[in-house]
Amino acid sequence: MSSLRSLYASDGVQIGGNMDVDYVVHYKVSNDKAEAAAGFTQLIEALTRVGLATEVRYGDSDSLLVFVKVASEKHLTNHIYRERVQDWLYGVRITTPNKDLAKEFADQPVTEAERLRTVYLLITKHKSEGCAGIAPKVGLWKDVESIFPLHDLAFNRRWIQQWSTKYFLDDKDLDQIRDKFGESVAFYFAFMQSYFAFLIFPAAFGFGAWLILGQYSLFYSIVSSLWSIVFFEWWRKKEVDLAVQWGVRGVSRIQRPRVQFKWDHEAVDPVTGEAVKVYPPMKRLQTQLLQIPFAFGCLAILGALYVFCFSIEIFLTEIYNGPFKAYLTFAPTIILSGLLPALSTILSSFAEKLTDMENYKTTDTHHSALVRKLFIINFITSYTPLFLSAFVYMPFGNLLVPYLDVFKMTAEKFSSEESITTQGFQINPGRLKSQMIYFTVTAQVVNFALETVVPYVKRKAFDEVKKVQYKGKSSADIDVPEEHEFLERVRHEALLDTYDVTVDYREMVVQFGYLSLFSSVWPLTPLCFFINNWVELRSDAVKIAVTSKRPIPWRDDSIGPWLDALGFLTWVGSLVSSAIVYLFGGDSNGPGGDPSNIATSGLLLSILLSEHVYLAAQFAVRYALKQMDSPGLQKEKAERFAIRKQVLEESLGPEAIEKPLPPTPQVGEKITRESLEEQARQISMNGGGTPEKLFWLRQQGMDETIQMGQRLIVQATESGN
Amino acid sequence: MSSLRSLYASDGVQIGGNMDVDYVVHYKVSNDKAEAAAGFTQLIEALTRVGLATEVRYGDSDSLLVFVKVASEKHLTNHIYRERVQDWLYGVRITTPNKDLAKEFADQPVTEAERLRTVYLLITKHKSEGCAGIAPKVGLWKDVESIFPLHDLAFNRRWIQQWSTKYFLDDKDLDQIRDKFGESVAFYFAFMQSYFAFLIFPAAFGFGAWLILGQYSLFYSIVSSLWSIVFFEWWRKKEVDLAVQWGVRGVSRIQRPRVQFKWDHEAVDPVTGEAVKVYPPMKRLQTQLLQIPFAFGCLAILGALYVFCFSIEIFLTEIYNGPFKAYLTFAPTIILSGLLPALSTILSSFAEKLTDMENYKTTDTHHSALVRKLFIINFITSYTPLFLSAFVYMPFGNLLVPYLDVFKMTAEKFSSEESITTQGFQINPGRLKSQMIYFTVTAQVVNFALETVVPYVKRKAFDEVKKVQYKGKSSADIDVPEEHEFLERVRHEALLDTYDVTVDYREMVVQFGYLSLFSSVWPLTPLCFFINNWVELRSDAVKIAVTSKRPIPWRDDSIGPWLDALGFLTWVGSLVSSAIVYLFGGDSNGPGGDPSNIATSGLLLSILLSEHVYLAAQFAVRYALKQMDSPGLQKEKAERFAIRKQVLEESLGPEAIEKPLPPTPQVGEKITRESLEEQARQISMNGGGTPEKLFWLRQQGMDETIQMGQRLIVQATESGN
Repeated sequence: MSSLRSLYASDGVQIGGNMDVDYVVHYKVSNDKAEAAAGFTQLIEALTRVGLATEVRYGDSDSLLVFVKVASEKHLTNHIYRERVQDWLYGVRITTPNKDLAKEFADQPVTEAERLRTVYLLITKHKSEGCAGIAPKVGLWKDVESIFPLHDLAFNRRWIQQWSTKYFLDDKDLDQIRDKFGESVAFYFAFMQSYFAFLIFPAAFGFGAWLILGQYSLFYSIVSSLWSIVFFEWWRKKEVDLAVQWGVRGVSRIQRPRVQFKWDHEAVDPVTGEAVKVYPPMKRLQTQLLQIPFAFGCLAILGALYVFCFSIEIFLTEIYNGPFKAYLTFAPTIILSGLLPALSTILSSFAEKLTDMENYKTTDTHHSALVRKLFIINFITSYTPLFLSAFVYMPFGNLLVPYLDVFKMTAEKFSSEESITTQGFQINPGRLKSQMIYFTVTAQVVNFALETVVPYVKRKAFDEVKKVQYKGKSSADIDVPEEHEFLERVRHEALLDTYDVTVDYREMVVQFGYLSLFSSVWPLTPLCFFINNWVELRSDAVKIAVTSKRPIPWRDDSIGPWLDALGFLTWVGSLVSSAIVYLFGGDSNGPGGDPSNIATSGLLLSILLSEHVYLAAQFAVRYALKQMDSPGLQKEKAERFAIRKQVLEESLGPEAIEKPLPPTPQVGEKITRESLEEQARQISMNGGGTPEKLFWLRQQGMDETIQMGQRLIVQATESGN
Repeated sequence: MSSLRSLYASDGVQIGGNMDVDYVVHYKVSNDKAEAAAGFTQLIEALTRVGLATEVRYGDSDSLLVFVKVASEKHLTNHIYRERVQDWLYGVRITTPNKDLAKEFADQPVTEAERLRTVYLLITKHKSEGCAGIAPKVGLWKDVESIFPLHDLAFNRRWIQQWSTKYFLDDKDLDQIRDKFGESVAFYFAFMQSYFAFLIFPAAFGFGAWLILGQYSLFYSIVSSLWSIVFFEWWRKKEVDLAVQWGVRGVSRIQRPRVQFKWDHEAVDPVTGEAVKVYPPMKRLQTQLLQIPFAFGCLAILGALYVFCFSIEIFLTEIYNGPFKAYLTFAPTIILSGLLPALSTILSSFAEKLTDMENYKTTDTHHSALVRKLFIINFITSYTPLFLSAFVYMPFGNLLVPYLDVFKMTAEKFSSEESITTQGFQINPGRLKSQMIYFTVTAQVVNFALETVVPYVKRKAFDEVKKVQYKGKSSADIDVPEEHEFLERVRHEALLDTYDVTVDYREMVVQFGYLSLFSSVWPLTPLCFFINNWVELRSDAVKIAVTSKRPIPWRDDSIGPWLDALGFLTWVGSLVSSAIVYLFGGDSNGPGGDPSNIATSGLLLSILLSEHVYLAAQFAVRYALKQMDSPGLQKEKAERFAIRKQVLEESLGPEAIEKPLPPTPQVGEKITRESLEEQARQISMNGGGTPEKLFWLRQQGMDETIQMGQRLIVQATESGN
């Protein structure tokens, strides 16, 4: 592991810099020489036109590396400043950008993430926005394989070293990630860190429950559900807070238009007053309704596969006793691991097509819609085996097994021997638990291996093949010696995978689902996840630093659609875990083999009850959390208030906020009622005096009113007696 | 009906003005003369000190009328301006108040509601805020009976005349209400109007269902539930829109501190930086938990009363056949109508105490908390009879009736005759329907009478008593003749009830509950409510104009806690109506007399299903509505955007938003690779040149990069072949 080793190299070793390169464009040379040359010329012209300097180097036998950096720092700061102004216009940023550019950038220095994001946008955004409009692999730019920034090796080394020696990450660590890789990646690590910290409680409690309460414990299940609610609601709040602290709240609304968006007509944007491209939301809604048949389709297809494999498995392991049993028991696993990825891929690409049809305007909404569909597929593939065991095999096993004779008959048909021996069917009460252990331990370890080891091995093998293929001219011959090491590194990075944070979120959300839905089956689940996630957090860091290209530092203001997925899992968890506890918990402590043993109404009642307890608890937790201070939101409000106050004082002067002073009260001379009425009469005789004027003239000033009132009080009390 | 008649007087008749009076303070003269005089002096001094002019007149035998108007219009506009600045500071108002006061008030003239609200605040807000701090009936001001504005008779007449001749109210009508009575009242009428318009559909559909489907129809019930969801979600959106249009969005956050608030300590407000009084929210949360036992307590007490009366009623009407049956059947009604109001009052005052203990900081949060508790009481008192009939009497009647023998035995004990004859018990299948008809028709008519006729009669009788009591000195002797008519009118208004919009909301929300929970029992329900609400809308207007004091024109940004109540009723409706349809609908079409006939699991399943269908439908409707344009919110966003843009252009100049121009690209001379490397070597030999500098010097300008790239392309394709 050359690059992994480099991370752990002793501090003395010099680590190569990035030659001030902002981005590398990996340009594939197509077979048509002339076309390749023309495309290349266009690429360089487009980049130069927006103020980027370029250098080209030999990539490998069929690609070039175009190095890009900003030609003039002033030009870049102008762009960044414009982005900041945009943020402010759309309400993402609260404080007005300073008029004085130098002061603005002194107050809020440009982070590496901000710089790289701006340059990336400069390269990829549409020409009409004054950018180069280079979209990798699309249309005119089909030969542009990828556009990626270079890893900061010194930082990566420090990062991995630091994280592998500490238990908890703090805000400083997250800020570091944010400055290097953008808020999108930082949000993932913030979520992971929170989830990891929150897991301490169920890990400890689960361990206790495992020792004392055993499985299917009602008490464990209630505590675990409550924990899910608290965690979910807490994160919902924390997420907003982080977005405010990082100055990205609301950024998902204004971000990145989708290149593939098709519009129906143009209209005036009611907010900005500019002409915008519109696709009628009702038309989109109609397409979105297709999600319902899609979900049922996924359930039918994947469900059928699972039921089929499940039936074979039951038949082979627990009924069949004939020849080749030892080998045949692997059959369902082989079928499943062969067909499941294929089916998942087909359904995922179908989900992508569906999302394309929904025709979203921004990449963020598109991505959310896609994630929602992928979540459906993941939900079904991840939890169906456990659902089948818990709600079909365990309660109805005895009833359904006779139907499995169809396999026996099939087997007999193909078998030359007459007799397929079968053994009597016994429901295996440990099945659910062993499945759960498989998902919490084995699967996580396998996943870890798939995530870290496999990409490395793949890369290594690929490199070897390349070396063997082109023995003739090596890059060392072509490169200038001083640059060779650097260029070799870039060539290596160009071939790494693109980091996709969605994959990591998906893994964690699926894990959270096991916890929320089935952890009462095996209370050690949270402990295993706790240990796994300590490793996961670090291995994800290694994945970014070593086995992936450096990610484009996108901004984000939340974990997006995954939040809904978490909320959904918490909810379903309240239903499923209560059903499991009702079915298998209690005194009997074993699974009821016969369906008549199970009072359906009892089951339904327990589900109904637990769901409403869940909703009430959620309401209460949400309310309680709302009462607590939220530093980020408070900061935001305070800033907003301060700015308004400042604007006010600047434009109106400080006295605008002061209390107005009342006019000094008139003090009248001593009067009698008669003199007053006399006065009024005089006014009326003099021709002036509307009734209103007269009314208000009877008592002039405070003292007269008081005198008059006191006289009336005396009268009133007299007549009252 | 003197004043009602005045509303309908022909246009020629002169209607008296209000003598420019802003507010009338109704001051009770206590028995202690000296105390009364001192208190009066304080009152006038306090009013004068904040710039208000006063006139005092004889009220009745033991009260004075103090007329208040703003002494200087300039002083008032200063106050109003300050309020507007406050609104802006807290984000309620979007556009900055104009520096030039004259221009500000020309652009946004002061409405009557704004004027009256400001004057009222000037009278009642705390001294520390530069106001008079007069709190009616509290502490120092216990003799201040009420502070109220005078009705605008000309407006009232036009209003009632207009409304009684049109079917639908439009936005202009609502704006009128808003300008006169404030947003709080306007929101009630806006809600009523929307609800009324929405009722057209279920009224027509219900009528059709009544003709074709009959009662307990599944189809009707589904459509009705969907309608409730759509109405609720639509209003949730509309409400925000109205608040934005009326410029009151967020006003509930900053409004009216509560005088009774007790604080624990002072702390710095994180937003404004001012010192504020703090009561720890966690301490409040603990008190709020008392709501749970409170709700159960209400249920137990009111439930017990209902069960008791219900049992007696069943016994007397359907079992008992002895003497006095005709009279005895009234017993439960008498008991109920005697005890229920008393119990409700006790529980309500308990709810008030509980809310006081929760110690809210603003009147709005206090009011919301109180409404939530009152809603619990209302929910129980309104729907328990129907719940008992539907879920106890109808399914379990036969089982429970034997227990009613306790009444028979009691009756035998007290009766001298030996034999109390009873008849065989038969469940009355029409009971639920006839109860429903009672609640939708009879009760609404009774309510109408209570709301409009009774206060008038009460008032009239009270007036007569007064006249008889004080034959000696009438007000006509004391008053100046020109003022007599006006003063008599003020005396009349001073004794009217205070209008409380909460009462009207409660009535409508309870009505909505009947619709949502039980309308499948009698599909004509929505039609009845539709007719009723046309009258209700007008009678509420009459109530405000004739039988109540003119309300203080408070602002509000929503229907507040009633929205939650509506949402709750929609939800419970999905549960209850599915249960009713399952129990009584279907082919049998009669109530199942025997509990064994009812498959409990089927009932539970139908509830579970319908609840989840409800939640899914709500999610879908909410999503669909979110896609639609919201004129108010759009206006708000557009304003915000325009202001930001304006600020930007003012401070930075228009070029800040323009796209920055890239620097002109360098055009290099024609080069060969050798010459370039030569150049680089020279630089490095000259001692300059970090590796970075050298890297970027190899190709100078765009053309060199293109040349180099093209050469590499040729090489690549060569080696590739």
